[in-house]
Amino acid sequence: MPNRTVFFVSDGTGITAETFGHAILNQFEIDFRRVRLPFTDTVDKAHQAVRQINQAGALEGKKPLVFTTLANEEVMAVISQGCQGMLMDMFGTFVHPLEEELGVKSNHRIGRFSDASKSKQYQSRIDAINFSLDHDDGQSHRDLASSDVILVGVSRSGKTPTSLYLAMQYGLKASNYPLIPEDFERQDLPPALKLHHKKLFGLTILPERLSEIRNERRPHSKYASLANCRHEVKEAEAMMRRSGIKWLSTTTKSIEEIATTILQELRIEHMTY
Amino acid sequence: MPNRTVFFVSDGTGITAETFGHAILNQFEIDFRRVRLPFTDTVDKAHQAVRQINQAGALEGKKPLVFTTLANEEVMAVISQGCQGMLMDMFGTFVHPLEEELGVKSNHRIGRFSDASKSKQYQSRIDAINFSLDHDDGQSHRDLASSDVILVGVSRSGKTPTSLYLAMQYGLKASNYPLIPEDFERQDLPPALKLHHKKLFGLTILPERLSEIRNERRPHSKYASLANCRHEVKEAEAMMRRSGIKWLSTTTKSIEEIATTILQELRIEHMTY
Repeated sequence: MPNRTVFFVSDGTGITAETFGHAILNQFEIDFRRVRLPFTDTVDKAHQAVRQINQAGALEGKKPLVFTTLANEEVMAVISQGCQGMLMDMFGTFVHPLEEELGVKSNHRIGRFSDASKSKQYQSRIDAINFSLDHDDGQSHRDLASSDVILVGVSRSGKTPTSLYLAMQYGLKASNYPLIPEDFERQDLPPALKLHHKKLFGLTILPERLSEIRNERRPHSKYASLANCRHEVKEAEAMMRRSGIKWLSTTTKSIEEIATTILQELRIEHMTY
Repeated sequence: MPNRTVFFVSDGTGITAETFGHAILNQFEIDFRRVRLPFTDTVDKAHQAVRQINQAGALEGKKPLVFTTLANEEVMAVISQGCQGMLMDMFGTFVHPLEEELGVKSNHRIGRFSDASKSKQYQSRIDAINFSLDHDDGQSHRDLASSDVILVGVSRSGKTPTSLYLAMQYGLKASNYPLIPEDFERQDLPPALKLHHKKLFGLTILPERLSEIRNERRPHSKYASLANCRHEVKEAEAMMRRSGIKWLSTTTKSIEEIATTILQELRIEHMTY
């Protein structure tokens, strides 16, 4: 049972506070109760947050941990004056020294977008997500040339979640294309991909793990059998080696690790943030 | 032209360093060159990183900004001793005071997962992504009851990217279901959804914006015409109001803002991290 509460307080979505806070808390083998207080963007809401934090502290007899990303100084002042928790002011800690180094004042802007629909960066991320959905599993050859990256690999090697992650996190147009028995018989990459050699990246996986994953989808099928998985993986790896495309094994990797490695290997630099 | 470089140095993927660094840098109206140095997990790689950082500084005549999330102390020592940039040691800054408050040592674990395939949390995120893809656009009624949330709204109101974001970021099983002319004629929600009233959340959008978005997909169609968009949006909003389901307008909102609001309104707490 968690017996200490962590608060994530932000005047925006709080996603930055959470991402960072979780990374820090992962350094400790402790189970925390986690409470998100997004959109804390008025003095009133700040007082509410302070009450909630102090109540948790009184109840648990332990200082709550409070991660804040507050660009609004008035709101931050209410929190820092009233809150009896351990305050980790993520913006204040780094923004003030940065103002000195850069010789300019910060703009105290809340969140990434004041109006997402008017942001070019945001639109290109949404376009990338739609592109990746339209080009999932070799569904469409149309406009394949606009892809930033084209993932190839056998069915269930991790192509779809990785493509979507690349689109969502980095605004990259990520297509993916399955390698199937016909390709293995022909001993060659799918013809549609030949023109895009530099954008290709292969995913492979241990046959044992692949068989487990496929069995969840189609139990006791030939498709999921270990013998078939071994055959497909062997053929796919031989093909990627012959074609000289870069590839990695996804067996023990998270989509974040796979995506980061792809960006490094293909030297993709023009991501949106 | 950017004339100052920012480095994101991590012994893992560096996604935390980047997310946090970008949030901080967004507070300044300056265009930075951004360089990611993920997987900096050996003393050798640390020395390489130091060389690269100091070179950029010498070339630009300005201190590079260096955001680090390094759990490995040896690697961090090399960076902090050799680097001539402005160091923002995100872990060090907060982990040491936390060790004091919590009365335990941190585990210096790198990244979220040592082996993603063995992590239950990670698997439930991948399951959620697959679930959301399988339940996109009302594709499947099967297992709809396992949804954590079911988004409804007219075509292109933002349901698909929001569902995928909820799955990817929070491990939530997010289905989505279109509201279509048949539903408006019947003046009732799709029958399949009736059993899941508490999980429903509506997305709407300004007809003018909807028409723009649809015109990109199907130019000059009746589907995209302003008259039709006005009709559909009016009917959909009337239906959501009558059915007493919560809803919001996505017109000026990012998927992060939409997702955060949904979590708040439906009081969803059991996210994975």
